[in-house]
Amino acid sequence: MERTKPTIIDVARAAGVSPSTVSRVLNGTTAVDAAKAERVHVAVARLGYVPNAFARSLLGHAGRWVGVLVPQLADEFYGRVVTGIEDGLKQGGFQMVCSLGHGERSTEAEAIAMFVEARVAGLVLVSDHVPDRDVLALARARHPIVLVNRVIPELAAHAIRIDNVYSGALATRHLLGLGHTRIAHVAGSLNRTGARERLEGYHLALREHGIARDDRLVFEGDFSEEGGREAMTRALDSADFTAVFAANDRMAAGAIAAIREAGLRTPDDISIVGFDNTAISRFTYPALTTVDYPVTSMGRRAADHLLQLIAGADPPPLPLIQPRLVERDSTCAPGEMR
Amino acid sequence: MERTKPTIIDVARAAGVSPSTVSRVLNGTTAVDAAKAERVHVAVARLGYVPNAFARSLLGHAGRWVGVLVPQLADEFYGRVVTGIEDGLKQGGFQMVCSLGHGERSTEAEAIAMFVEARVAGLVLVSDHVPDRDVLALARARHPIVLVNRVIPELAAHAIRIDNVYSGALATRHLLGLGHTRIAHVAGSLNRTGARERLEGYHLALREHGIARDDRLVFEGDFSEEGGREAMTRALDSADFTAVFAANDRMAAGAIAAIREAGLRTPDDISIVGFDNTAISRFTYPALTTVDYPVTSMGRRAADHLLQLIAGADPPPLPLIQPRLVERDSTCAPGEMR
Repeated sequence: MERTKPTIIDVARAAGVSPSTVSRVLNGTTAVDAAKAERVHVAVARLGYVPNAFARSLLGHAGRWVGVLVPQLADEFYGRVVTGIEDGLKQGGFQMVCSLGHGERSTEAEAIAMFVEARVAGLVLVSDHVPDRDVLALARARHPIVLVNRVIPELAAHAIRIDNVYSGALATRHLLGLGHTRIAHVAGSLNRTGARERLEGYHLALREHGIARDDRLVFEGDFSEEGGREAMTRALDSADFTAVFAANDRMAAGAIAAIREAGLRTPDDISIVGFDNTAISRFTYPALTTVDYPVTSMGRRAADHLLQLIAGADPPPLPLIQPRLVERDSTCAPGEMR
Repeated sequence: MERTKPTIIDVARAAGVSPSTVSRVLNGTTAVDAAKAERVHVAVARLGYVPNAFARSLLGHAGRWVGVLVPQLADEFYGRVVTGIEDGLKQGGFQMVCSLGHGERSTEAEAIAMFVEARVAGLVLVSDHVPDRDVLALARARHPIVLVNRVIPELAAHAIRIDNVYSGALATRHLLGLGHTRIAHVAGSLNRTGARERLEGYHLALREHGIARDDRLVFEGDFSEEGGREAMTRALDSADFTAVFAANDRMAAGAIAAIREAGLRTPDDISIVGFDNTAISRFTYPALTTVDYPVTSMGRRAADHLLQLIAGADPPPLPLIQPRLVERDSTCAPGEMR
């Protein structure tokens, strides 16, 4: 009597694991608990299971894809992160499945659910809005996950991000070093961690130089060019200062426009430092002094770390990325003419 | 006697089609020849084939993904195209699998092979380098394909692109309308169709105004900021003109820098028009007059067209996208002071 061919579901039942665990063991792409893997191999041998070649090819493909969630791609920063991630994944023989979160919690959650349902081998999340507990639930379910520019304490070893506090201090120290003492800050949206940390770095550097904290010199923007222009217009109307640290290049470009519209000059009247070293910073006039960090290589390192997690290795914790200052033409000593 | 369960391969053999055709018919996501689909349904009924639930879920996923190939993502233009494509696909319940071609033929070819092997439901190619015959071979094998900014005559109905000739003429006519007659052109890399077509538009507009063609006023750049700066430096050294049309915003920004370095002013001494309306054009000083076209909505239309092809429909040919001129501060009448 010819026996019915066993399916992957029979193997899963016999091994006491899920079908997706069977596929992960047989494809060897994802980390699986050694005891479970052993049970799968025993069940495969006992049942004489031979994966259907067609299904196997599909399993292979599903296992070779990594889900990448980013807020958007129209901004150079995210484009560069994703470029690095894609490059790192491709080097390891994996393919990027990319989804956009548009800064909305429901869209982010849907994209992650789709990735998980589609059984991607791992996830890279450049995502601010999905709650910590949902990300942690995925990690506890043994989904390999790497976070970019986000802090969840339990996942700190698998998060790559820039040292925003140090970066904010670096930008502010540059202005202090030139002799400025009245320094304004155009902050990003203060409901975002990165914006709060850059502000903290600004306060830190001022304190180091014995300059009393003055919250009337801090103007909240929203990371957009227009937000920077508005914040700087408010600043010029209400405060007295000779230099500005803006929390990104877009806001710095808006601030330069506001300074020009007020009949003042950069840097002769007001020095300005940006943040991100995007293409924008080379195109403003004057070209912008700004804080640079290796965005593409951050993406590549995130991918490398994830590939090690997928392979079942225990990679060393991801580092806090250190920035450097790029000096261009938007800063000088107070009172100096350029 | 219990019979062996038929597999998808048995169905394919009985129907005289490939296993992937069987899966396409059963998932209903891709266009399949009606006669073939009929043979598949007959074979399924005769053999009593029931797709394994697990394999079926995988097939479902494979069928819901669309491969998108772009040269890179660090440039705003491609980021905006991909944003539109992703949005359009998501509206239709499909997911984007994105790969970068890095402007290299072998990388583009590998990415396309990977997509096909992985049985994506369709392809959007923003790809210059893979040969026409390879793209045509895919189309003949019934892979739904949409091209962005690329011309292959046989696939013209499935290609969305901007009207480069008209756009080049539009930029040049703006300068002619202001009274300029000595107009230089900083061209893109002339091995690229888009660059040659913009140059053709420039010649067309001059001819309309009875101005004799003068090839000594055309300077080839490479679409980069530095290429624009170098081309403009050569132009200022060798030719006499009062206005420039640059084939993209990056080169225009480089050209503005070269004009400033030569001790001249934009637009007082030399007017300049860019192309693309990227963020750069708002940040240059003076802000750049440029040619705008709806990049994100181009991506969305490409996705919509592809989804119709996947569904087996026969959508109307994709249009040639018409641009509009965005006037800012980098152009004025010759001799006028701003």
